[in-house]
Amino acid sequence: MKTAETLHNTAELAELGQQLRVDSIRASAAAGSGHPTSSMSAADLMAVLLARHFRYDFDRPTHPGNDRFVLSKGHASPLLYAAYKAVGVIDDAELLTYRTLGSRLEGHPTPRRLPWVETATGSLGQGLPVAVGIALAGKRLDRTGYRVWVMCGDSELAEGSVWEAAEHASYEQLDNLVLVVDVNRLGQRGPTRHGHDLDAYARRFKAFGWHTIEVDGHDVEAVDRAYGEAESTTRQPVVILARTLKGKGVAAVEDREGLHGKPLKDADEAIAELGGPRDLRVRPPEPRAARALHAVRAGHLEPPRWDEGEKVATRDAYGQALVALGNARGDIVALDGEVSDSTRAEAFAKEYPDRFFECYIAEQQLVAAAVGLASRGWVPYASTFAAFLTRAHDFLRMAAVSGAGINLVGSHAGVAIGQDGPSQMGLEDLAMFRALHGSTVLYPCDAHQTARLVTTMAGLDGIRYLRTSRGGTPLLYGPDEEFPVGGSKVLRSAGREDRLTVVAAGVTVHEALTAADALDAQGIPVRVIDLYSVKPVDRLTLRRAAEETGCLLTVEDHREEGGIGDAVLDAFLDGRPVPRLARLAVRTMPGSASPDEQLHAAGIDAEAIMAAGRLLVEEGIAP
Amino acid sequence: MKTAETLHNTAELAELGQQLRVDSIRASAAAGSGHPTSSMSAADLMAVLLARHFRYDFDRPTHPGNDRFVLSKGHASPLLYAAYKAVGVIDDAELLTYRTLGSRLEGHPTPRRLPWVETATGSLGQGLPVAVGIALAGKRLDRTGYRVWVMCGDSELAEGSVWEAAEHASYEQLDNLVLVVDVNRLGQRGPTRHGHDLDAYARRFKAFGWHTIEVDGHDVEAVDRAYGEAESTTRQPVVILARTLKGKGVAAVEDREGLHGKPLKDADEAIAELGGPRDLRVRPPEPRAARALHAVRAGHLEPPRWDEGEKVATRDAYGQALVALGNARGDIVALDGEVSDSTRAEAFAKEYPDRFFECYIAEQQLVAAAVGLASRGWVPYASTFAAFLTRAHDFLRMAAVSGAGINLVGSHAGVAIGQDGPSQMGLEDLAMFRALHGSTVLYPCDAHQTARLVTTMAGLDGIRYLRTSRGGTPLLYGPDEEFPVGGSKVLRSAGREDRLTVVAAGVTVHEALTAADALDAQGIPVRVIDLYSVKPVDRLTLRRAAEETGCLLTVEDHREEGGIGDAVLDAFLDGRPVPRLARLAVRTMPGSASPDEQLHAAGIDAEAIMAAGRLLVEEGIAP
Repeated sequence: MKTAETLHNTAELAELGQQLRVDSIRASAAAGSGHPTSSMSAADLMAVLLARHFRYDFDRPTHPGNDRFVLSKGHASPLLYAAYKAVGVIDDAELLTYRTLGSRLEGHPTPRRLPWVETATGSLGQGLPVAVGIALAGKRLDRTGYRVWVMCGDSELAEGSVWEAAEHASYEQLDNLVLVVDVNRLGQRGPTRHGHDLDAYARRFKAFGWHTIEVDGHDVEAVDRAYGEAESTTRQPVVILARTLKGKGVAAVEDREGLHGKPLKDADEAIAELGGPRDLRVRPPEPRAARALHAVRAGHLEPPRWDEGEKVATRDAYGQALVALGNARGDIVALDGEVSDSTRAEAFAKEYPDRFFECYIAEQQLVAAAVGLASRGWVPYASTFAAFLTRAHDFLRMAAVSGAGINLVGSHAGVAIGQDGPSQMGLEDLAMFRALHGSTVLYPCDAHQTARLVTTMAGLDGIRYLRTSRGGTPLLYGPDEEFPVGGSKVLRSAGREDRLTVVAAGVTVHEALTAADALDAQGIPVRVIDLYSVKPVDRLTLRRAAEETGCLLTVEDHREEGGIGDAVLDAFLDGRPVPRLARLAVRTMPGSASPDEQLHAAGIDAEAIMAAGRLLVEEGIAP
Repeated sequence: MKTAETLHNTAELAELGQQLRVDSIRASAAAGSGHPTSSMSAADLMAVLLARHFRYDFDRPTHPGNDRFVLSKGHASPLLYAAYKAVGVIDDAELLTYRTLGSRLEGHPTPRRLPWVETATGSLGQGLPVAVGIALAGKRLDRTGYRVWVMCGDSELAEGSVWEAAEHASYEQLDNLVLVVDVNRLGQRGPTRHGHDLDAYARRFKAFGWHTIEVDGHDVEAVDRAYGEAESTTRQPVVILARTLKGKGVAAVEDREGLHGKPLKDADEAIAELGGPRDLRVRPPEPRAARALHAVRAGHLEPPRWDEGEKVATRDAYGQALVALGNARGDIVALDGEVSDSTRAEAFAKEYPDRFFECYIAEQQLVAAAVGLASRGWVPYASTFAAFLTRAHDFLRMAAVSGAGINLVGSHAGVAIGQDGPSQMGLEDLAMFRALHGSTVLYPCDAHQTARLVTTMAGLDGIRYLRTSRGGTPLLYGPDEEFPVGGSKVLRSAGREDRLTVVAAGVTVHEALTAADALDAQGIPVRVIDLYSVKPVDRLTLRRAAEETGCLLTVEDHREEGGIGDAVLDAFLDGRPVPRLARLAVRTMPGSASPDEQLHAAGIDAEAIMAAGRLLVEEGIAP
């Protein structure tokens, strides 16, 4: 077996590159799909990295000193899997299961299935932003000296998220971050904007504060020197711009258009042209000696408390609860999109500046950094306005593919923000977060509930979303009340006398209570359910309410699609009879107005609930 | 009244700047909220632009020769409205209605209410990308010589979308585009990354191919010269980086932190310090003489036809239908995110290269360009993978705030794409598009249906979304069948004998038909509804099916939240009894597998429909 010791001469490195090409072609041919040409361009870059620079113990992917590698051009997965074969963690038989049902070797790599993958890729322009998060963890928190290597394509440099990351990395002087760009000149459809003009990319990265290196990506000695230069660079992230040829090594496909994402037509001939299969093995350099992640402080959790009669905004409660949680758990970190004075994350930032990450107005990078931090075992809370989390929707989607455990907190939900108008109103956030696989969606209506949920969400799997409100609301619960995920609270009820159930969450809970008092006075007893757990939803309580009251009215400060109204339906999808349902939600495009005027204009205030409730109970129709 | 003729000396321009400051303070004070300090920094920039360079007839906002102005820092709306007062299109009384219920002067400007606003802003980093779309229209389509002026803040340069736009603008040599950056050094929470380091921004823009000008933003003569230099620059977009002070002119707030988005504490004193109110009027320079938009060709619409028995992918049908539509209507334009060979937009690109816009892998810019083109009267179809449209969610949200009429086409929907795996699967797109205000969501299952819907959507208002599939599906309809928006098709039924209704769309329609045949053979007559119009939904047909068959089973290649299952519920929200409901949707995280294996694994194939249908009909329970 060839090891790192024997793979130190140029010819052997080049041989390894050829092996990676051959295996990329073989895997794609077996699958009948995949991206061999995009793998072949980067094969020499990968070979030198593996043999000489990537300090990683493949037997111990959790080794705290391991470097980290992110294949941002996730479609080049054949190359990654060929590398796994070369280091001996998968065998040839598994390599040939590529893209088949049940195989770990998916079309695009995911950490759900493979322990050596840091984050799911396949949506271009996401690898670098996530790697920035990992590098931040390495530099500011873990401090075990690891380096983060990212390999991306040239096409994906058109994604703005790459430049959010470039800005963030240089500002934070992430000299533990190396971006390797496989400039093969050809995108999916055809040539990129800049072709092989490496200088064009270098100018951009240099202007953004990066150290740049240009290199022939097929000259293994030059590549080796470039990696060495990257490793010795300080106070700046490094980009290696490598001129490569798509399909390198096989004349029929080399540097040709129209061959993206297609297995080679004659794989056997191509393999022969590359010198046939090899069975070289490579052992990457050892990781730095490092202890397990530094112990994180574990203090006592003292959740904030408020006095009865206080009006407290749930965003304020969020800030204070996060400080308390940060005191109890040293693994809690916070990030914000330059609005921490509004989201109230600033309370945490002031208390724990070492664990706070200012991401400026770059929501994609905000979420990506959270994903990167989570991949290293930290528990991130990332906040901005609920409306602006839509900017990071694709990153959230990919975080779900990764199975990343991250907390998102969206403030300024709904029309209740008032004068600022629709651009600032989170009105689609519940729909977005509910549709993410494995997500949890929480929407508190008072400060004590918020504080409890902030703590609870830290321990959940997957993507956890907390929706907070701008304005103050009265306390409805005591400080010791518990709020299990998947639960709800019946805030008022006359038992089986109830003729209507109003289901609300957040600001509309308070409107519902007002309406219920008035309807009760008119002889219509009303049950009010606080549906603070929007996903998962409390099926039992909703079903009981349906049985006992016959009709449900949902009311939400959100668009009518995908929010609380739809969530309630989840309780009735088991084939049983569904109660009569009606829904109040934001159906218009708001302008500017006071919060009360907004709730009224949208038809989700107490008055609207009363009218709709009467109509439903007395006439059996919905507004 | 002072006019442009008299506002030519420095002192008068400075006076106009002071008036804009005073009126910004007055409007915010009257509202009790707003962003006077962010308005004051840009007041001189606005004054000089209005008086000397912005060629615009405020009485004729539709004048084809008008320059266009986009206030990307939409929170500085007081400045914009102060400018409207200075040009005489709103009066002082209206200025003081700022941010109140019913006022046109919203917290952030929108074209729904004001004819001089090109696009809604308020989500930062969106003004420039939309302006790129307008500038593309100006340069490549309208060709009436207008210039597009964008004013943005320095904080928002952290948004990646700005750099997508920067790349696009220089690549397209948009010398009719001028970006004015109000570098006031302070963001919402505190200082920006680069403070007053104009060079830092200049380096970045220069590297991206822009002509850069640095200027003192309070020196009206220098600003005037900068605008002049911008106007005389060719073959490059221009950025003017203006050093300014937030709150300029009022010592209590000038260049101070912690005063973002707050009315001045002592407005009267501040106004006095600025020299008191003025009533200067200004008339901007005349627009260039220009005819109405050049006549667009109107040919005959010959939709594509396919022969019975053919299997055609709906994405293929999209490409061919768009070509046919492009022939019939010269105002149809297409854009794609560098995957036109996959979305099939390439058919249009080949036929009408002048009306095709390659946006490379930059989905935010893709959607923003569509919004910009639509604002100039063009009818854009923007396509990429359905999954990657999530990248542009915030742009879509703001397009809805604008009321923009744009067509989005997402290909590669659902697990049915097969081997590529979850990163490439559109599984949340229906939820995202349904929740957008005023949207239309269409999801065809065969080629003829696709072709009809492609034509129909051109004539709708708001955001129209068409979801297409990767693989071929049999033809179910003839070429002359009509598919009204809000309709559906009952594909099979035994009338009142039916014991179950299966509601499907896209690929699952074909699975539903197979399952229905099998169930029928087992003595369970099944009605199958093709719900091609997901929003709005065909309430009458669904209600009739509910009444006649008693239970509905929805099946969709999408997450269970926010898609077809939830859409069906819309038919039953009028308080009437709801039928028994069950739902099949994608509940797992798929890996790689063949399309058929994927449908099976997700439990949305014919076999799963049969099993669920039997259970629902015979046992009254859902799987």
